[in-house]
Amino acid sequence: MKKIVVINGPNLNLLGTREPDRYGTDSLEEINGKVAKEAERLGAQCEFFQSNVEGELVSAIQNSGNTDGIILNAAAYTHYSVAIRDAVAAVSAPVIEVHLSNVFARENFRHTSMIAPVCRGSIAGFGAKSYCLALHALIVDF
Amino acid sequence: MKKIVVINGPNLNLLGTREPDRYGTDSLEEINGKVAKEAERLGAQCEFFQSNVEGELVSAIQNSGNTDGIILNAAAYTHYSVAIRDAVAAVSAPVIEVHLSNVFARENFRHTSMIAPVCRGSIAGFGAKSYCLALHALIVDF
Amino acid sequence: MKKIVVINGPNLNLLGTREPDRYGTDSLEEINGKVAKEAERLGAQCEFFQSNVEGELVSAIQNSGNTDGIILNAAAYTHYSVAIRDAVAAVSAPVIEVHLSNVFARENFRHTSMIAPVCRGSIAGFGAKSYCLALHALIVDF
Amino acid sequence: MKKIVVINGPNLNLLGTREPDRYGTDSLEEINGKVAKEAERLGAQCEFFQSNVEGELVSAIQNSGNTDGIILNAAAYTHYSVAIRDAVAAVSAPVIEVHLSNVFARENFRHTSMIAPVCRGSIAGFGAKSYCLALHALIVDF
Amino acid sequence: MKKIVVINGPNLNLLGTREPDRYGTDSLEEINGKVAKEAERLGAQCEFFQSNVEGELVSAIQNSGNTDGIILNAAAYTHYSVAIRDAVAAVSAPVIEVHLSNVFARENFRHTSMIAPVCRGSIAGFGAKSYCLALHALIVDF
Amino acid sequence: MKKIVVINGPNLNLLGTREPDRYGTDSLEEINGKVAKEAERLGAQCEFFQSNVEGELVSAIQNSGNTDGIILNAAAYTHYSVAIRDAVAAVSAPVIEVHLSNVFARENFRHTSMIAPVCRGSIAGFGAKSYCLALHALIVDF
Amino acid sequence: MKKIVVINGPNLNLLGTREPDRYGTDSLEEINGKVAKEAERLGAQCEFFQSNVEGELVSAIQNSGNTDGIILNAAAYTHYSVAIRDAVAAVSAPVIEVHLSNVFARENFRHTSMIAPVCRGSIAGFGAKSYCLALHALIVDF
Amino acid sequence: MKKIVVINGPNLNLLGTREPDRYGTDSLEEINGKVAKEAERLGAQCEFFQSNVEGELVSAIQNSGNTDGIILNAAAYTHYSVAIRDAVAAVSAPVIEVHLSNVFARENFRHTSMIAPVCRGSIAGFGAKSYCLALHALIVDF
Amino acid sequence: MKKIVVINGPNLNLLGTREPDRYGTDSLEEINGKVAKEAERLGAQCEFFQSNVEGELVSAIQNSGNTDGIILNAAAYTHYSVAIRDAVAAVSAPVIEVHLSNVFARENFRHTSMIAPVCRGSIAGFGAKSYCLALHALIVDF
Amino acid sequence: MKKIVVINGPNLNLLGTREPDRYGTDSLEEINGKVAKEAERLGAQCEFFQSNVEGELVSAIQNSGNTDGIILNAAAYTHYSVAIRDAVAAVSAPVIEVHLSNVFARENFRHTSMIAPVCRGSIAGFGAKSYCLALHALIVDF
Amino acid sequence: MKKIVVINGPNLNLLGTREPDRYGTDSLEEINGKVAKEAERLGAQCEFFQSNVEGELVSAIQNSGNTDGIILNAAAYTHYSVAIRDAVAAVSAPVIEVHLSNVFARENFRHTSMIAPVCRGSIAGFGAKSYCLALHALIVDF
Amino acid sequence: MKKIVVINGPNLNLLGTREPDRYGTDSLEEINGKVAKEAERLGAQCEFFQSNVEGELVSAIQNSGNTDGIILNAAAYTHYSVAIRDAVAAVSAPVIEVHLSNVFARENFRHTSMIAPVCRGSIAGFGAKSYCLALHALIVDF
Repeated sequence: MKKIVVINGPNLNLLGTREPDRYGTDSLEEINGKVAKEAERLGAQCEFFQSNVEGELVSAIQNSGNTDGIILNAAAYTHYSVAIRDAVAAVSAPVIEVHLSNVFARENFRHTSMIAPVCRGSIAGFGAKSYCLALHALIVDF
Repeated sequence: MKKIVVINGPNLNLLGTREPDRYGTDSLEEINGKVAKEAERLGAQCEFFQSNVEGELVSAIQNSGNTDGIILNAAAYTHYSVAIRDAVAAVSAPVIEVHLSNVFARENFRHTSMIAPVCRGSIAGFGAKSYCLALHALIVDF
Repeated sequence: MKKIVVINGPNLNLLGTREPDRYGTDSLEEINGKVAKEAERLGAQCEFFQSNVEGELVSAIQNSGNTDGIILNAAAYTHYSVAIRDAVAAVSAPVIEVHLSNVFARENFRHTSMIAPVCRGSIAGFGAKSYCLALHALIVDF
Repeated sequence: MKKIVVINGPNLNLLGTREPDRYGTDSLEEINGKVAKEAERLGAQCEFFQSNVEGELVSAIQNSGNTDGIILNAAAYTHYSVAIRDAVAAVSAPVIEVHLSNVFARENFRHTSMIAPVCRGSIAGFGAKSYCLALHALIVDF
Repeated sequence: MKKIVVINGPNLNLLGTREPDRYGTDSLEEINGKVAKEAERLGAQCEFFQSNVEGELVSAIQNSGNTDGIILNAAAYTHYSVAIRDAVAAVSAPVIEVHLSNVFARENFRHTSMIAPVCRGSIAGFGAKSYCLALHALIVDF
Repeated sequence: MKKIVVINGPNLNLLGTREPDRYGTDSLEEINGKVAKEAERLGAQCEFFQSNVEGELVSAIQNSGNTDGIILNAAAYTHYSVAIRDAVAAVSAPVIEVHLSNVFARENFRHTSMIAPVCRGSIAGFGAKSYCLALHALIVDF
Repeated sequence: MKKIVVINGPNLNLLGTREPDRYGTDSLEEINGKVAKEAERLGAQCEFFQSNVEGELVSAIQNSGNTDGIILNAAAYTHYSVAIRDAVAAVSAPVIEVHLSNVFARENFRHTSMIAPVCRGSIAGFGAKSYCLALHALIVDF
Repeated sequence: MKKIVVINGPNLNLLGTREPDRYGTDSLEEINGKVAKEAERLGAQCEFFQSNVEGELVSAIQNSGNTDGIILNAAAYTHYSVAIRDAVAAVSAPVIEVHLSNVFARENFRHTSMIAPVCRGSIAGFGAKSYCLALHALIVDF
Repeated sequence: MKKIVVINGPNLNLLGTREPDRYGTDSLEEINGKVAKEAERLGAQCEFFQSNVEGELVSAIQNSGNTDGIILNAAAYTHYSVAIRDAVAAVSAPVIEVHLSNVFARENFRHTSMIAPVCRGSIAGFGAKSYCLALHALIVDF
Repeated sequence: MKKIVVINGPNLNLLGTREPDRYGTDSLEEINGKVAKEAERLGAQCEFFQSNVEGELVSAIQNSGNTDGIILNAAAYTHYSVAIRDAVAAVSAPVIEVHLSNVFARENFRHTSMIAPVCRGSIAGFGAKSYCLALHALIVDF
Repeated sequence: MKKIVVINGPNLNLLGTREPDRYGTDSLEEINGKVAKEAERLGAQCEFFQSNVEGELVSAIQNSGNTDGIILNAAAYTHYSVAIRDAVAAVSAPVIEVHLSNVFARENFRHTSMIAPVCRGSIAGFGAKSYCLALHALIVDF
Repeated sequence: MKKIVVINGPNLNLLGTREPDRYGTDSLEEINGKVAKEAERLGAQCEFFQSNVEGELVSAIQNSGNTDGIILNAAAYTHYSVAIRDAVAAVSAPVIEVHLSNVFARENFRHTSMIAPVCRGSIAGFGAKSYCLALHALIVDF
């Protein structure tokens, strides 16, 4: 059974209450629930991690280095964290960058991703669905 | 039955022979075949269009404006075509930007997308699978 | 009788349906009708051309090189087409740049015009009236 | 009877003697005369104001805030006066930016207009005719 | 009794009528009244000056150079006036920069202050209250 | 009784010993004491939090989201923390940015605030007094 | 017998009439004639293609991918066409970039070539002779 | 007898009291006295003008357009006044830019002169002597 | 006996397994061992600290402020951590910046060090030897 | 008999041993030999000069000012030597810029040529053949 | 008797023949003659040095470090020579930067002087007279 | 016995007299003496070379290409000499960049090193000790 780790960055613990127009009304637990269910359907198992602390995300990525894949929503850190970038580059598991919102339709500083160049691929703009698409990208062979 | 249009831009007609290390060995027809099959499985129908001419892609997007979704790989035009951007913004169908390769891991001029800000979302880096993930994004409700 | 050519670029064929808040509810045909009528009133004759293809706009400008004036709304190509700029610079007819909307009040990339430096003058922001003002600029001697 | 105010900025009091190759041989009085005559023909009345002092132009715009329109050639201040921009944004009368010369064909610093984004529209490059076209833009309904 | 001079720059004479959503509905006189009253309460005396002319603001700062403090809302000139900056640097009275609105939440060109580096401190975003806070900064010893 | 939270970022725990010429000789405890006293005088109650860890500041802001106001000196993180910006934007309590020193008179990288655009207002340059002014901004109605 | 394809971009069909001071008085046919004759002298055969349409140039390069060499004057498209760049990179035939004029002595935007980095080499500034030198570069072994 | 006009810009009326380390202890009157005396020695006559108002400097330059030379210390306006630049370009008298201090050894924004490109020449860094050197430049034939 | 603290930043805990071509095959423990041994040889004593968390590195630097020297490899944080920079500037111990790899031969964003300007000196590119050279710099008097 | 001078800049004396993958295995003498032979075949005579010293290259260009042409490979100095640019602009002989490698496919700083704008034309990317093509450009009339 | 050294940089040995429209028809010897004569008149003695080699100019400045002044026309090296800048900063003699032409009216890259910030002052645009004005600046006490 | 060459660039011949606060009071000879002694202690032999001429430094590097290492203080040339960079890249001996001062704490233009990317490593900020550390880097195996 494949093991996938879903790592969420700062302020994503507020989902459901924070700017619901942009991020939807699902809480992070609800989104994780959907992702876990879809993973199960695809024959995989998910673990979930969230932190507001950049360095704890670095450690989480390091600790997931030997799984079958990491789904990473680094949120605000996406745009400046060389430390997370270096962690992604250092592990052998494939890492997929996801975003709930279409970051390219927002402020300029959100158009740059320090992390994308070292990820396998990127998925942005589909809300909670972005995580499920990333699951498919890691597991399904179309 | 939902109708999805897949629009491919310049040089994608060379797939399979062009830089196979980067783009894989599947021809565009083979990729289209996979996408059509997956669409069918999801209860949708795909139409395919490819052109090397920017303005013909503009027209193709205009002509697909009332379908259930457009999957757009604008290839090289992604990075400078305001004309394609304006066409995407003008149609009511949701448009999803896809790329075969991880454009963020390549030359700097490929890190800017004129099109992303007006698309529903973006998927990049999964080869032919990028198109199938876009199909899921348009059709499946996880 | 003076002969004026009105050349419209990409997506202007959608006028009336595309973002009516910005561009008004007149279709391109209706705008052309108004312009033709005003031209007639001023003792001139108008021809109209529209294309989504950059190179066809280049050819249209070349083919209108010996008329009494070209009214050019290059739309999206305004901002990056060196090819259209070179065509404008190559013909002897005076070329007037027009825009329906006030491009300076929109996205940054619309503030640069590759074409303005080689045109006789520029008129922007007056909707369909922009074309009629350009007619006056070419024909009337105040 | 509509009332239009024509406001001219620094060094335009030198017209006729200053770089006649670029600006023509008409003095400001002669241009104002032509504009007044055309306004009369269109059933409107013009008032004229010129100053070399940025703040006096700000005040003039404020004082014309309830007229039927302002034709503003801010000349050199066009390119850096946030104060004039704020005045234009603060009044309810429509303001039209005009320039005698094609500013886009000159030095780079003349390609930026602080004022254009808050004006109704812009007309540049037609010499004294630019003012008359602005009159038409404010008064005539084609 | 301490003497404080409040100097207001261009377009602030329009307060109350200009963009009330952004600047509130108080006129400049009403704001000055509140500030004068608070100053009195704190045992100080205020003088008020407003001009749309950059150079008159320079002179006003020079003339207030020996007071107990200057509260300066240079408005639009904040962003480009080296002349006002040099005046602030030349006087010995402490100068406090104030803004009614949160300038950092507005256009990019309003994020740069030529004046801030030579002021004692800056207060922005509290409407008329910004002036009273500046009074406290100059007078009160917490 | 109103509740205000004062959140201090990295290195502010060193106050009193760190560069006293720039930051004064008061320790953070002494500053907090003054602020608590002034709050009490104004009929409010203050809580204090300090951390060197960006993510802990994010959490502290989240946890103070329902108070009557947050006074935030993000120190070094001011200039690059999108994570703190997102936290500020996510809470409903008004947040006021404060700085002890006049950041605009220091290195260029300190002139940019990632946080200011989503705060209610900013106060900088008055030493410990900056916090008291922020208290007034939150509580007093002049 | 070696086969070389000469591909000319937008506005080069106007040669002889367009800015003869810069481009000389030879028409494109006359230049092609000279090149064909020189090719014959060197034991090679030339084919010629011209288009104003970017996408047709992309197709022409694709179609010439198995010849002994492509001489490409992409004219205006040189400076922004990622599509042509990608076509050049996709074919196995050596491609040589040529320009009639010394592009480095002209406007700044003509100093950047999107195409040069993927060409074998570049030759600019020798008028029609540039094409003959490119022929030599492809065929002659000094 | 030659007539030379010396025009001084904002804050130069403070000379002698303003930052004497940088600008010396001579008042503007004392400097003007030295310059008048040296002019007399060289057989010329000087007029002096000072203003803090940009537009009054523009007018002063216009009014001195037919003299034998203008010595212009535009002070702070040097770095952004397109209006003064345009006035300098409009008059036929030779204009010499002078500065008391070595502007190139100060803040970056003082390294750009809007005025220098349209002046005859520039002299900076010699204190009051800069004006006398400019007199020599205008009058003496070495 | 001198006391030196060696502080290592994010991802350096992975040394030996992470990109061994770039960083060598020694683990962090092995490197620390070598450094401790060399310190001993030079009559000094080393303490070691590693964290992935920016704020913990800030605290570690603060806590080492009274030792005889800090050897700091801030890794990814080198390039954007103003917080670490401020900590380095705040302590009185000399701080030496070290890097295992030649950061100047890598991506552009690694060419900027926020930390270098406030360090005593920098040593980069010598692998584990960089630390030993820093020891010599702190202790040995050649 | 025509006289051509071939001037080679810094490090070209190392040809054959320096990065043979990029520059080939021919020494500078061997390349010069080929060029001399081809010149002879074309009825011209070549002189050769190489120096690592920028100023000696300036002098060499000055000394060749009255020949029939200069073939200049300024190597590293190409990208920043205003002195060599000025020398090229000062002589009447036509100067052709050559490069062995395709400089546009290398580091960014090699994409700018200070020299190209004042040369007759440029030839890059053909190894030793670049010099022979330059000879043809100077001598042969196709 | 005061001793002044006049140091001229690259290509100034060509004066009189090089672009006489810009630089005049006097040779360097003739200019030096005028300067020597004026120096004599002012009771000083001049030495002259010219070189095309940057490093020789560095040495010349070093060797003149104890004279009464250096008049330095670094010509092309003005714009990029950190080496000459460092030499100027290292000597105790006052150094005056001179230019024959108004460098600010020429190409952009000539608007930056590496040398000006460390010189006493700058004089540009007066042809050979620039040197004589520099002599006055060094010797005469107005 | 290992052979190391120490190459010093422009103005380093002035050490001891030039800005002693920054560079110390040791002359270059004294520094060389220390380095020679330390080399001897480590069983190596040093040769020393200094020049103010960029091209002579290029030649010196070329001539030291087969030694056991080059210690290079390119001084001012560090920041712009592509020629020295190319020489470093062309030789097989390891080259170590050293600086006496902490260049990152000085002017912005000293933060860029053209040379660092092709060196083995860099050492800056330790005065004369920088050279000895470089010796250790080349010779000692910790």
